[in-house]
Amino acid sequence: MSTPIPRKTPRAWKTLSKKTILDHGRFLKVEEHRVQLPDGRVIPDWTWVIIPDAVIVLARLLNKRFLIFQQTKYALEGVSLAPVGGMLEEGEKPLSAAKRELMEEMGCEATNWVPLGCYVLDPNRGVAKVHYFLALDASRVAEPDSDDLEDQEMLEVTREELERALFAGDFKEATWAALVSMTLNHLRV
Amino acid sequence: MSTPIPRKTPRAWKTLSKKTILDHGRFLKVEEHRVQLPDGRVIPDWTWVIIPDAVIVLARLLNKRFLIFQQTKYALEGVSLAPVGGMLEEGEKPLSAAKRELMEEMGCEATNWVPLGCYVLDPNRGVAKVHYFLALDASRVAEPDSDDLEDQEMLEVTREELERALFAGDFKEATWAALVSMTLNHLRV
Repeated sequence: MSTPIPRKTPRAWKTLSKKTILDHGRFLKVEEHRVQLPDGRVIPDWTWVIIPDAVIVLARLLNKRFLIFQQTKYALEGVSLAPVGGMLEEGEKPLSAAKRELMEEMGCEATNWVPLGCYVLDPNRGVAKVHYFLALDASRVAEPDSDDLEDQEMLEVTREELERALFAGDFKEATWAALVSMTLNHLRV
Repeated sequence: MSTPIPRKTPRAWKTLSKKTILDHGRFLKVEEHRVQLPDGRVIPDWTWVIIPDAVIVLARLLNKRFLIFQQTKYALEGVSLAPVGGMLEEGEKPLSAAKRELMEEMGCEATNWVPLGCYVLDPNRGVAKVHYFLALDASRVAEPDSDDLEDQEMLEVTREELERALFAGDFKEATWAALVSMTLNHLRV
């Protein structure tokens, strides 16, 4: 922690054992953990959900306009705006995955990469870690070659349009809205 | 969508049938959905994860300082800063849950509630919806009466400290960092 906020001694829970209670292949596993609290109590059946870790990338072109998708996703109602997103491949570094996804999905390269953090999706059950990137000075250098199953259309928007869309709730997924919000904060300071 | 961005006709996936493949009580269910894509293809085993919907609340006191927790959580490494958070009870409205959680966890009431959106945790498998609230003009009126299992300590921080902590990655969970970021954006415009 780099702030002057006082740090408290953490008392982490201890994992005593784990067993897999659902294995749905690469995309989903569920475990049951036997955990011990700092006061000695034991919870025998704490669930732990594992979906693949992911990267999300918001790209800004040299002309200062942002590239985003308008798309449908199974878990979202109607159309949502979205940055580029994708799962980490086995052993892949987050920045490498971010560059690969930006090329595959938007046909873009960027020369100025800003990491905006890595966040856990659920504080209790884990679920996944998502790495956030802002890709500045991006250029379109190829045709997109996406293997996504969803309909998606690429849009160029100004910073003002991006901010209005964020406040209107047009980015409907938690990490997407977070990346847009953090980008707006980052570009202000 | 309230922006001038052109809207595309959405082509949503169709749910043909559902079955529960894991029922771990109130905190976790997993379903398998048979879904049909717009082009007619059928995916027979799309997983769908259900954990309870939640509210998160960032409180700012009348003295303009923010109230946050420093806490440990099973899925987070070390100590994290956090806003108030909790699950919606059966049939409970998000704003009511937000007020209840702020009272239980921090012993606070607030007179100026700002909803900052509702976001889905995972665009493919759903997982949960989280409702974000900023509670302005908050006052401590009671002792907290939390039933949380984790160690937590309440801190008062300035807006500058909050922003530094966000950029340092001290809010380690996706929706917590998102709420802090959106609050900073909201208070700037």
